[in-house]
Amino acid sequence: MSKLVVQKYGGSSVANVERIDNVAKRVISYVKNNNRVVVVVSAMGDTTDELISLAKKINPYPSERELDMLISTGEQISSALLAMALHKKGCDAISFTGSQVGIITDTYHTKAKILKIETKRIKEELKKRKVVIVAGFQGISTNQEITTLGRGGSDLSAIALACALEADICEIYTDVEGIYTADPRIVKEAKKIDYITFDEMLELASRGVQVMQTRAVEVAKKFNLPIHVRSSFTKKEGTVIMKKTSFIEEPVVRGIALTENEAKITICNVPDRPGIAAKIFTKLATHNINVDMIVQNVSHRNITDISFTVAKGVIHKAVKVSKEIAKKIGAGKVLVDENIAKVSIVGVGMKSYPGVAARCFSALAKRKINIEMISTSEISISCVVRKGERKKALKVLHKEFQLDKIK
Amino acid sequence: MSKLVVQKYGGSSVANVERIDNVAKRVISYVKNNNRVVVVVSAMGDTTDELISLAKKINPYPSERELDMLISTGEQISSALLAMALHKKGCDAISFTGSQVGIITDTYHTKAKILKIETKRIKEELKKRKVVIVAGFQGISTNQEITTLGRGGSDLSAIALACALEADICEIYTDVEGIYTADPRIVKEAKKIDYITFDEMLELASRGVQVMQTRAVEVAKKFNLPIHVRSSFTKKEGTVIMKKTSFIEEPVVRGIALTENEAKITICNVPDRPGIAAKIFTKLATHNINVDMIVQNVSHRNITDISFTVAKGVIHKAVKVSKEIAKKIGAGKVLVDENIAKVSIVGVGMKSYPGVAARCFSALAKRKINIEMISTSEISISCVVRKGERKKALKVLHKEFQLDKIK
Repeated sequence: MSKLVVQKYGGSSVANVERIDNVAKRVISYVKNNNRVVVVVSAMGDTTDELISLAKKINPYPSERELDMLISTGEQISSALLAMALHKKGCDAISFTGSQVGIITDTYHTKAKILKIETKRIKEELKKRKVVIVAGFQGISTNQEITTLGRGGSDLSAIALACALEADICEIYTDVEGIYTADPRIVKEAKKIDYITFDEMLELASRGVQVMQTRAVEVAKKFNLPIHVRSSFTKKEGTVIMKKTSFIEEPVVRGIALTENEAKITICNVPDRPGIAAKIFTKLATHNINVDMIVQNVSHRNITDISFTVAKGVIHKAVKVSKEIAKKIGAGKVLVDENIAKVSIVGVGMKSYPGVAARCFSALAKRKINIEMISTSEISISCVVRKGERKKALKVLHKEFQLDKIK
Repeated sequence: MSKLVVQKYGGSSVANVERIDNVAKRVISYVKNNNRVVVVVSAMGDTTDELISLAKKINPYPSERELDMLISTGEQISSALLAMALHKKGCDAISFTGSQVGIITDTYHTKAKILKIETKRIKEELKKRKVVIVAGFQGISTNQEITTLGRGGSDLSAIALACALEADICEIYTDVEGIYTADPRIVKEAKKIDYITFDEMLELASRGVQVMQTRAVEVAKKFNLPIHVRSSFTKKEGTVIMKKTSFIEEPVVRGIALTENEAKITICNVPDRPGIAAKIFTKLATHNINVDMIVQNVSHRNITDISFTVAKGVIHKAVKVSKEIAKKIGAGKVLVDENIAKVSIVGVGMKSYPGVAARCFSALAKRKINIEMISTSEISISCVVRKGERKKALKVLHKEFQLDKIK
């Protein structure tokens, strides 16, 4: 039986007529190698952002249901165009909206979750040896409304389809050549990683490496579906994300992520009573504010400072809620610091090498980089530093863990 | 019970953010007057043409199924944007694709016919006092594919919805103020017509007056649904198209149409045998070529010339088929003349006034305008003239039948 390949092409890969044509060529090369191919496409270039900005000109707070009606058109357009490009080259193909192939979601517009995928229509067309093109990023809700899956949702469409169809592999085509040991725009010695585990990828994604949508990787992990992240502009192999196997060598650290997307809030002079931290973070949670790192200083005379980081997008709301809490519990001022960055080292290998954290801290200390906050997980260590020192920190750690030496 | 109004806004009426806002204001004025409103919208400005031209860059002969996938997005976008504009002004509204409201069509892509409209979902939303916005020009076929209804198809969506919902009236908003006695860009004395019968409108439409889609008017006639054609840029009343009633006064001629969209083909030296004309026009029909006017010259020595007009769009195909026929039946050369125009006078009144045709011909003759072909129906007379004389002919006839004197 021929292999079933699901390919996803991002917005930059279908940004114009010429690039759509190139995608068609690549798809056909797979068909010629006796693969059955399902293609998921994003909207062309910046279409989605342009549609959102058009909507906001009409209504600064557009209804999410209508926003989904609007932005789902972007992927429908690129799907139809890719079908036409394949036809021109003599390749039989058919495009579908998320609704038509039965990508059933819940009813949360602009951030819907996939509940089920009906594969009947796709399988019928594959049997006719057609390339099946599916508009990414969208589905149809249980009450028959058009929904979208949130930023990066086309990744999720592709992975979920690949799992439902029991595909052999899912290829994610993007404008970078794969996952790197660090952002190559900052660390010029950064190396492309050939293989990475699901857990490492999830850790990198949640700490600022935005090559793939986190939820999509989670689904792939659950179904143990290998993902090949690669560039649509070259034929080079990219990075395969897969289950940990003996085949994957284990360096101490796989890669380093950097994010400038968070801000630090400090509530000063918090009375250090049992349950006070719980009170603060429960309140923030009820306001739907996701807290990342938390640091509580040593208490002096039963008074302490509590700092935490939140995404910059919710900083306004987080400060407002923090001030209310501070007043209620008799704490002091609320300080905001947007001038921070977070550097994270990630690798399943670090579990078996004691002293990785110490090595990380002392490498930074040696270069006089002050660490303001620390958090660790089984396979990662994150340090908050001054924003101005973020690039230096990234380079220091990249060198310390010899990521430039990976062949 | 409040009145149910179906309104259709054409591409120029929703061409940009400001105009969409104006449409929202107009819709709200109807809601405030206790009307229930269903709005059908076309794609913004030239969106449809732009999408088609994008498709042709990728594939000069795009599949019609994929073309429908592509171009149906235009109306989806304008529908969602209009809903957002209404929300902003505090008016409850919801947009739907043709597929979502159940505009069921046959399977002929890019020119589908409406088979049925399921009104359940619209009625439910109207009961909740919502303005229901429907993407025009599109439907869903009996085999679950997205279809479009052909040029001017949004008119048909609106009329068909109005009939299915038993609306009190259907308003067609466009960029002209109504139907005129002649094209006001050519005849400056042309007057806006207040009332016109379905038959007159159909006759005008089929003879070059392109304010409304012909099929849409036919459906309205069948269901006896009054149509109000008017401008979205003024509050002035436009033209009401309705059944003939004593209320409508009957001038001899209601209006004059002009088209330059046809070409004349002549097959020379056709052997004049019984059945030869049938042979020619059956052959053309099997190639899907619509013939408009036909003239056969008096036969000399059993040889005659046969001329007919076809739309310029199919001229290439028509000439090819004509040459094949000519060869087969032993006729002579095939001549093409694109340098013609057709002027038609239309009016239900002409039935009761004998001599209208004579008056028409002699008015043109008096101004030395040669008539090359003539065809007549119960309520119209069409004359083919040299293209260079079309404007003069239009003005002569407008004056002869005193259309400038209509109050």
